[in-house]
Order: sequence, then C-alpha cells, then structure tokens
Amino acid sequence: MLDLINELWYLKRDIVSHDFDQALYRLAEEIPMQIHEYPTGQQCWTWQIPERWTCDEAYLDTLDGQRLLDYANHPLHVLSYSLPFEGIVSRAELLEHLHVHPSLPEAIPFVFKYYERDWGLCATQTLRDTLTQDQYRVVIRTRFEPGTLKVGEVVIPGDSPKTFMLVAHLCHPAMVNDDLTGVVVGIEVARALLSRPQRHYTYRLLILPETIGSVAYLSTHEHLIPDMVAGLFLEMLGNDSPHALQGSFFPESQVDHCLTRALRGLRPNSYADAYRTVINNDERQFNAPGVRVPMLSLSRVEPPGSPTRPYREYHSSLDTPAIVSAERLENSKEVVLGLLEAWENNLYVVNDFKGEVFASGYGIWIDYRTDPEGHRILFQVMEHCDGENTIADIALKLETSFQAVWQVASLLNSKGLVHFSRTPQPTSPLCRMR
Amino acid sequence: MLDLINELWYLKRDIVSHDFDQALYRLAEEIPMQIHEYPTGQQCWTWQIPERWTCDEAYLDTLDGQRLLDYANHPLHVLSYSLPFEGIVSRAELLEHLHVHPSLPEAIPFVFKYYERDWGLCATQTLRDTLTQDQYRVVIRTRFEPGTLKVGEVVIPGDSPKTFMLVAHLCHPAMVNDDLTGVVVGIEVARALLSRPQRHYTYRLLILPETIGSVAYLSTHEHLIPDMVAGLFLEMLGNDSPHALQGSFFPESQVDHCLTRALRGLRPNSYADAYRTVINNDERQFNAPGVRVPMLSLSRVEPPGSPTRPYREYHSSLDTPAIVSAERLENSKEVVLGLLEAWENNLYVVNDFKGEVFASGYGIWIDYRTDPEGHRILFQVMEHCDGENTIADIALKLETSFQAVWQVASLLNSKGLVHFSRTPQPTSPLCRMR
Amino acid sequence: MLDLINELWYLKRDIVSHDFDQALYRLAEEIPMQIHEYPTGQQCWTWQIPERWTCDEAYLDTLDGQRLLDYANHPLHVLSYSLPFEGIVSRAELLEHLHVHPSLPEAIPFVFKYYERDWGLCATQTLRDTLTQDQYRVVIRTRFEPGTLKVGEVVIPGDSPKTFMLVAHLCHPAMVNDDLTGVVVGIEVARALLSRPQRHYTYRLLILPETIGSVAYLSTHEHLIPDMVAGLFLEMLGNDSPHALQGSFFPESQVDHCLTRALRGLRPNSYADAYRTVINNDERQFNAPGVRVPMLSLSRVEPPGSPTRPYREYHSSLDTPAIVSAERLENSKEVVLGLLEAWENNLYVVNDFKGEVFASGYGIWIDYRTDPEGHRILFQVMEHCDGENTIADIALKLETSFQAVWQVASLLNSKGLVHFSRTPQPTSPLCRMR
Repeated sequence: MLDLINELWYLKRDIVSHDFDQALYRLAEEIPMQIHEYPTGQQCWTWQIPERWTCDEAYLDTLDGQRLLDYANHPLHVLSYSLPFEGIVSRAELLEHLHVHPSLPEAIPFVFKYYERDWGLCATQTLRDTLTQDQYRVVIRTRFEPGTLKVGEVVIPGDSPKTFMLVAHLCHPAMVNDDLTGVVVGIEVARALLSRPQRHYTYRLLILPETIGSVAYLSTHEHLIPDMVAGLFLEMLGNDSPHALQGSFFPESQVDHCLTRALRGLRPNSYADAYRTVINNDERQFNAPGVRVPMLSLSRVEPPGSPTRPYREYHSSLDTPAIVSAERLENSKEVVLGLLEAWENNLYVVNDFKGEVFASGYGIWIDYRTDPEGHRILFQVMEHCDGENTIADIALKLETSFQAVWQVASLLNSKGLVHFSRTPQPTSPLCRMR
Repeated sequence: MLDLINELWYLKRDIVSHDFDQALYRLAEEIPMQIHEYPTGQQCWTWQIPERWTCDEAYLDTLDGQRLLDYANHPLHVLSYSLPFEGIVSRAELLEHLHVHPSLPEAIPFVFKYYERDWGLCATQTLRDTLTQDQYRVVIRTRFEPGTLKVGEVVIPGDSPKTFMLVAHLCHPAMVNDDLTGVVVGIEVARALLSRPQRHYTYRLLILPETIGSVAYLSTHEHLIPDMVAGLFLEMLGNDSPHALQGSFFPESQVDHCLTRALRGLRPNSYADAYRTVINNDERQFNAPGVRVPMLSLSRVEPPGSPTRPYREYHSSLDTPAIVSAERLENSKEVVLGLLEAWENNLYVVNDFKGEVFASGYGIWIDYRTDPEGHRILFQVMEHCDGENTIADIALKLETSFQAVWQVASLLNSKGLVHFSRTPQPTSPLCRMR
Repeated sequence: MLDLINELWYLKRDIVSHDFDQALYRLAEEIPMQIHEYPTGQQCWTWQIPERWTCDEAYLDTLDGQRLLDYANHPLHVLSYSLPFEGIVSRAELLEHLHVHPSLPEAIPFVFKYYERDWGLCATQTLRDTLTQDQYRVVIRTRFEPGTLKVGEVVIPGDSPKTFMLVAHLCHPAMVNDDLTGVVVGIEVARALLSRPQRHYTYRLLILPETIGSVAYLSTHEHLIPDMVAGLFLEMLGNDSPHALQGSFFPESQVDHCLTRALRGLRPNSYADAYRTVINNDERQFNAPGVRVPMLSLSRVEPPGSPTRPYREYHSSLDTPAIVSAERLENSKEVVLGLLEAWENNLYVVNDFKGEVFASGYGIWIDYRTDPEGHRILFQVMEHCDGENTIADIALKLETSFQAVWQVASLLNSKGLVHFSRTPQPTSPLCRMR
C-alpha cells in the first residue's frame, strides 16, 4: 500500500481536477472499477457539480521582486478553489487572505473554499511573521472550467442484494493520512473480499471527492439506497493513533452494535464514540434524511481531550508519507476485514435444544472451579440462544466482544445444538403475562 | 391586570359564596364568558356540590367583653366553611379550634374545612400568645344554604376541535397571588388569543373554585374530554419567584416535552419539575383516571429546598397586592403566550431534501470556524428533519430549546427545504434490519 | 419441619440412589404426591438419566493398615458418583483425588462428579495435613446400576390452568440447609395452599434431584410448559442469613416485579438481586431457552461481598441440623406464602370513578397536615388506577411495597370505587398525541 501512496500522494487532488482524475485512473489499474462521471453544473439533489479547477501559477512577491512563496514549491500554497487574483495589496489586505496553521509554525495549512469563494494563499506562520513591508505583489492564476466530477466504484457481489457500503475520499491535495490511507486500505479490503469464494452481502467501495462525491453518487443511484443496509467510512488509517469507531446516526442499529462489539474483540486498545463526535466525513450524506443508511466511520484518531486531535499533522503540509507506516496500514486492513467478518456472521442464534445443554455429554463442559470465566460465557451465551438475539445482541447484553460470543455459538453449532438464521426465529413456547 | 386585582382581591371568595359570584360576574364583563351553574347537592362523579356558605358575624371575646378578634376586620379570621358556634369555651378547647400560621407570627392563616367540618377561628400567633385566661367567649354565625357553584368558561375556537385547556381558580378569600393572579393572567392570555386571526387549536379557559369546580365542569362535559389534548394550570404568577413548570402525569407526552423545551428558551432562569412535585391544584382532576388530559402547571415558586416554598406569604393574610407587580404579571402573560405559541408550532418537520442540504447554495451556510455552535445546531436540526420528529422531539434529542430548533426549521421552511405536518410523514427509504 | 429434617438429613441422598428414594417415599407420606420415575439411560432433551449409584464401602489406609478415613463414618467421605477404585497409590496421586474444603479445615467438603467421572475421596484439611507417607491404600467399592430417577410432584389445583411452579431439590447427601430446608418449607407451603377453599392459580411443587430432575420432568411434561406462567425455587431457608430473592431471566416480568415488591413489604431487611447473581439451581432449567418460565429463587444468603457467601457451612459436613432453627424455617414459610399471596392478588386495578375520588365523602380522607405519607400513598395509588396497571406495576412506579399498594386498592375496592381484573381494561378516554 505504501508504494501506491508514494506514487499518488503529491498529486494536486482537488475535488474536480486533472490530478484527481489521474489518481483515480491509476487506482482503476489496481482493481476492477467503474468510474462514474458527473458534469459541471449537474444538479444532484440540492447540490450542483462544481467546475474543474486548475491553478497554473501562483506566488507572493515583495515589491522589489523577491519571491516569498510559490505554488510550484507546494500545492497547498494556494487555497483550494481560490479565485484568480493579481495585484499589489497592502499588508493588511494580504493578511486577510493569507492562511496559516493555528498550531504548527512550520506547516502550510490545507484550506479550501469550494462554494463560499475567495482568493487566498497559505503559508507557514514563520513566513508570515517576516511580513513587515507595507505592500506585496500577489499573483494567482487559476481557471474554473467545465469538467466532470468522478467517482470510482468497486462492486463485490454477494449472495444477497443487501449491500454494505465502504467509502473513502481521494480528494485532499498533497496529503497522505487524510485520506489516501483510507483509499488504499479500502482497495486492499475489496481485493481480499473479491478473492473469497462467497459472501452473503454485496459490497460497494466508493472512491470519491468528499461530500459532493457522495451526493453525486447517491442522487444518481437512489434505486440502490433501499438495499444499502449498512456502511463504513474509512479514513486516516496509517498514523500512530488508536483506532476509533464512530457510530452511525442509529446507535441501536445492528451494524452499530455488531461493529462496536467486534472492534472490542479485535483491538482492545481502540475506542468507540457516538455519531459526529470523532470526525465528520461522507458518512454524513449516507446517514442523512431521505438516505438513512447507518454508516459508521473507522479512523485512527487521538482520544477525546488530546490537544492534537484528530492527529498532529491533520490538514497540513506535514501530512506526508513520513507519518504513516506499512505495518499500521496492514493492521488497519485487518481491522476492517475483522469488522466485516463479524457483519457477515451477525446471525440470529436459534436453539435446537431445550433447557440447558448437557455440556458434559457434548464434550463442551467447562469446569467453573478451574475456569469460572469460560464457564460463565458458555452458559450465558447458551441461555440467550432463543432465535430472538443476534450474535451482536448477545454480545451487547453480556457486555463482551462479538468474537467471544461467536466462538461459543460456533461451538454449539458444530455440536448440532444451534443453527443460524438471518431472520428472527423465536423458540419461546408462548408469550406470557410477563 | 393590577386594577382588576385591586378591585376583587378582598372579596370573601369562598368556594360557593356570594362574593365568589360577584367576582366572577365582574370578570365576565372583561371577556365573553359563559357561566355554568351547579346547584347544591348535585352529584358530580364521586362528589357533591356543597352548600353556599355565609358568615354573618364572628368574633372572639374575653369573658369581660374585650373583643380579641373580629371577622369584620379580616375574612380569614374564620375557617372557610366553619360550622356555626356560640358559647363559652375553656382555653384548651379554644386552642383546638384556633388556627395560626406555622412560621409567620403576624399573619392570619388561610384554613378551610369544606368537607370534614368543624368550627374554627384563625388568628396571628402573636394574638394567640396573649391568651392566658381560663375561658373565652366564641361567636361564629355562619349559614349553609342551597346555592349554585359557578364556573366561568371562555371559549376561543380554533381550526381544530382539539382543545388546549387553561385553568385558574378564583376561590381563595382575600388573597391575591394564590390565585387571582392566575385568573387575570388567564384572561389576558385569552384576550390575546381571541385577537388573533387564526389558531390551530381550540382553547378553553376555565375560572372556577378549586377542585370541586373542575370536577363539576368535567363531569358535565364528558363529551369534550376526548378532544382535550393538553392543558396548563395557571397559579401564583405575580410574586417574585422564578417560573416553575410542573409536568403532567405523562412526562413523555408531546405537550410535556414541548412546553418544557419552550420554557427553557423563554426564561433560562426558570425550572421544570415532575408532576405533583411543585404545587397541587386542579391539574390533578384533569390528569386523573378516566380523564387523563396531560395538564401541566405554571407558577412562580421558590426552588426545591427553599424554606419559604412555595412562597413566603402563601395561604396567609400577607398574600396581598403588595407582593405582586404589574411587570411580573405581564412577564407571566408573555411566558404563557410563548408556551402556547410553541404548542401551535409543534409540528413534524418533513424533509423535501435528501442527503445534507447544500447550505452555501441556499445562503444558509454557517462557517464552523467562526460560529461552531451555530454550525452545529444548523446541521443537527437538519439531520433530524425526517417526518418522524416534531420540533419538541428534536429539541429534546439535541438538549436545546424549542425556539432554537424552530428558528432553524423555519429557515429551512422559508427556503423550501422542509414542510410541516400535524402527523408523522416518515421519509426514510425503508425500515431496515437496524 | 425440624422433625422431618432430623429424620431424613443423614440419608445418602445422591441423585439416583436408594436413600434418595427412601427420603422421597417418606415425604410422600406427608402430602399427596405423585412420583414420576425415569429409568437410567432415558434421553431427556440433551441429557440422559444416569445410573443408580451405590457406595458399599470406601476407606483410606496407611500401608500398615491404619484406617485414616471411612465412608462408614460420613457419607461425604466419598465423591458423589465416584468410580470404584482399589489400589496402592503414591502420596501425589492420592492428593489429586483427595478433596478438601477451601476454608474450613475441620469440614469434609461435598464434591460430586456426576458426568465427568473420576474416583475421589473427601477429607478434612486437618487430616490431609497429616499425610506424609509415600504411599497409601485406597478402597472405593461403588456400583453403577440401572435404576430410576424419581421426581415427586404435589399438584394444588386452582381455578385457572395457569400454573405457578415451586421447586426444591432433595439430593445432597447428609446435608440440611442445602436443600432439605427448601423441601420441607415447600411441603408446608403446599399444605397451606391445599387447606384453602380456593386459589386462582394452579400450583405444582416438585421435589427432585438437582438439574437432571428438572430436565427429566420438563422434557416429559412439555404440554404443561405453556401454562407455567411463573415459578419460585426454594433453597437454604433455615440458616441465619437474610432472605435473598433472585430475579428470573425476565427482570421486567410481572412475577419479578410482584415478588420483589412483595418481599420488600414482608421483610424489610431482605434484598433482591439479578438472575444468576445469588445462587444457581434448578431455576436455570425453567428460565432456559425453549422453556422460558420466569422462575425466581428464594434463599437465605449472606449479602454480596461477604467472605462466607452463600453461607459458611455451604457444601460441607458442617451443614447439619445445628445451623437451622424451627423459627427461621417458619419465618421462611411465611415469606413464601406472603409472596404467593401477592401473586394471587396481582390484579389490574380498574377505576369505577373518574377524576379524583371525593375522599371525605367515602370516609377515606387522610389529612396531609397530620399524615403526609398516608395522604401521598392514597392519592398516588388512586391516580394509577386506570385498568392499565397491576398492583405490582403501581408499586414499582411508586417505589413502594406491594402490600402498601394492595392496602389502598383494597380500601378503594371495599368502597366500590375500583374493581379488579386479570387482564388490562384501560379506561382512558382516548389515546392522544402524547
């Protein structure tokens, strides 16, 4: 995954741009991908596809011709979707349009104004501190032209048309962790899913520009929405922070319980938090009114209260290949595959027994005198096998991991004591006056 | 409102009495009012209309003819509905029938025995402390005669027969805050509602003697009860304590959430508490079995834990015009009108958009970098607009005021992004395996 | 009850054994009882009825013939269902098969291996500490033969086929509190129920060997299960610990709320705790998948955190008649009868009044000035009488005892103000937009 990152990261991947397209075409060589195109001006629900944006040249000079800052040196030096501008400006006016990073004096910040437009440059705080002259010369040569916004889609068919959505965005120029890492992890996950002989769910991986890409895709694929039963947004998966799972708009949904309980089994040092409390991305469009797909988000984010949240180099020129590692990317891929494995296995457990199972007779007895915890989980899972609870439901009730429950349920299944079902099959004799 | 109070407060407004009638007739000159009459002895559910009570004369003398206390000097000197009594009594017997205020030595307490009858006088603690002689002479000349209990009703028709009940009681003699203030605020509120061109709900304001008045009205208007969807009791609205909103028997009802969230927006220093925990009045009859109208109660009451709760002068001769002000009455009227405005506006918000709205395109974008709270409320309200939540539901979920949500919903409505509905109109594509 | 205990306690009541049968036959002389027999090898759901087990002789000798331990001296000296064994064993091997009590050095522990079989002896820690020789001689002469497991059933017919199950186990050899006390209390309770002219529910008392007895009975009486609406397991009812009520698998069931609230009224010093958190017994089979009878458990158990939980002498040779008293057994019987009385009385309270009741007119007024608590409970119970709440529901909502609510409801019933119903009879005029 690092090779692809090294190859693509420095491209000027603005939301509708030449470099975005180049990056997407390159990814399409990695895996079978359909590329959807949406022309500038197309109405997508309440949105419109913006123009293709190009910056030919941009710099800041002193009046005596000294070059202080040049787009040729770094793509972040120009506000993404900056208006063109050329002229002599006072120091005060310049500073209104010169963006710096709030806490990293040596970093160029990533700033964008896609819709509330303005001209702007971005610089290090260090450079800005040297600006003591009265006037400066600004040149920003940008073009707004008709183009097409592009969304890459990898479809991994399953036995069921019910679909799990995977989404990552490719759009931030010259940055890596946010969110080229989500893109390459997504592609590796898709490759692994494709290599399997069978899947219950259909999976769709979308590679797109943030927000507008999701709106463009959803608004032109409304017929698919009823089948989108769940989803996961992937972002910031290579840095050195713990995995964080952000819940969907539906905290009581099966997918929320399933993935949360599964992450607990996969990465005990990870954490989970509520919708909109970790990081905001395309999952907002999927959870939104009229769509209502419960989509969670997986990322590596510093814990709540950390001063560097989400991570120190976020939205800056310091978000380079240096802050991600192959090992952490691989680790994130394993987490995603582990979450999806749980999702595939999140079945109702239907008892083919009545009463408690004669554990000794089936060779599954665990002596409470020698392994009280093993004994406890065996019997507690067993007593919840009634065709009314999924694996995730049981894990939630027992306050344990998805995997701990799955292990016992699989054992019971291997002994012919339970079977699995995608729908509830209650086995209680009667609904009584409870 | 103060003029009316000054005119009526000192009347001996016992529950069925000449002065109660006089006060009600005077109020009927202020606003179109129907007066219902219920004759003594009429059975009303489990209750009976009591006799009209008159006290012609009452006093306490020493045996040598010194007058210690005289009904002519203050209507509270005689227990409301006291039996007649005349005779020489021992000091011990007198003290059993002489009521004083537990904490205000200079106040005459308000004591009533409408149904568990006895004779009784009321005095200041100061006077009582001087009673050192062996015997006293008591004269109480009261009459119990056939009469009619009266209930005044102001009807404010709306587009819908669904009715919001406003109730205040007129019955305590020679007192002001409890509850002549509720009466005059109720009349001003009714006047304001009548002056409007249109209302969705029908409103009915009842002016009545406490408890028995509500039972009399309800038992003779059973056909109206199914349309009574909510209500508010008004009391003690002129004194200098914070507004307190007491919930109904149904804390999860729309009206409870709506009014509680609205008060939060109207008066941040007010507070809300559960049914029966602030003050008990006629709302008990409306919330009671077989009626079950969710009726809240608004009053000005010292906070829980205060030693003078509900307010210092409560049920005493110190509850005079001196403790209420025109400004506080006006303020209370505004609160009631604000609560009712919220009730009228408590609609389901139905999205005519899908996904998140392109806020910039509609000119409603709030930059999270400059106004994070404004940005947050805009997007959080937006994401709950799905035809399944009322304004009050959204305010509850976001832990904010009714008004904050209404402001955003109105803005979205003005942009054609949402419409309002009196009934749920879910727009989610499908109910999924959540 | 002590006489029966003294007569039966020292019998070797292993689960399928001669002495178990003798004890059961003796109990059948006390009360009309049907005895169900299940032959060795019979399949009962996932279980099989075990062989009848007999220990003819067992002892531990030094090689020079000194007798260290003899089954003839105490039935607990041999592991229940020990395999036969005879031979010279090293000290190390002996210690693997010689069980001692973890905390009581002078007690012989009760150890059983019904299904994971092994040979074994049980001794005091004191004896074990003296075993310093290299080799010992072990003789265990046990027999595994075809027999029949026996379950005693006392049926107490009621007006309704709906059945309340009472269960106690008779099986632990030479012990008293666990659970001969549950057995004798159960029989006394059954006797008291039989002596009454009428009962609404049918009751069935089962006297059985633990776990396998319940499975045997349930699997051969599946047609009765839908009528088993609730149950109570009885155990450890004579020792000097507080009563503990363990909830069923359905903490929100009527029987859970009813019995928990009733115990609060019967024994203020008792406590209640969740399913599986006090003690595990046959209630597990009744609460299990495919059966799902909400069965609670009553026992006398030291509170959570106590080092001697469940009680000091549990599962040891110190569990003798010395630790139980006639007074405590009688007390436990009263508690069980009190719980069942509440169950019989747990009816929906349907108001035949509307509004609040005119309490004075019915002679039930309680003055809030002299008895605020009595006034409060009167009016709070009254306001919940709407045909939608049982006595237990009301007690739960008011956080009071079953009996406190029953007292008020009975008073209202005696005045013709409410009637009782086994099914909900809502009297609210309308379901509104609440």
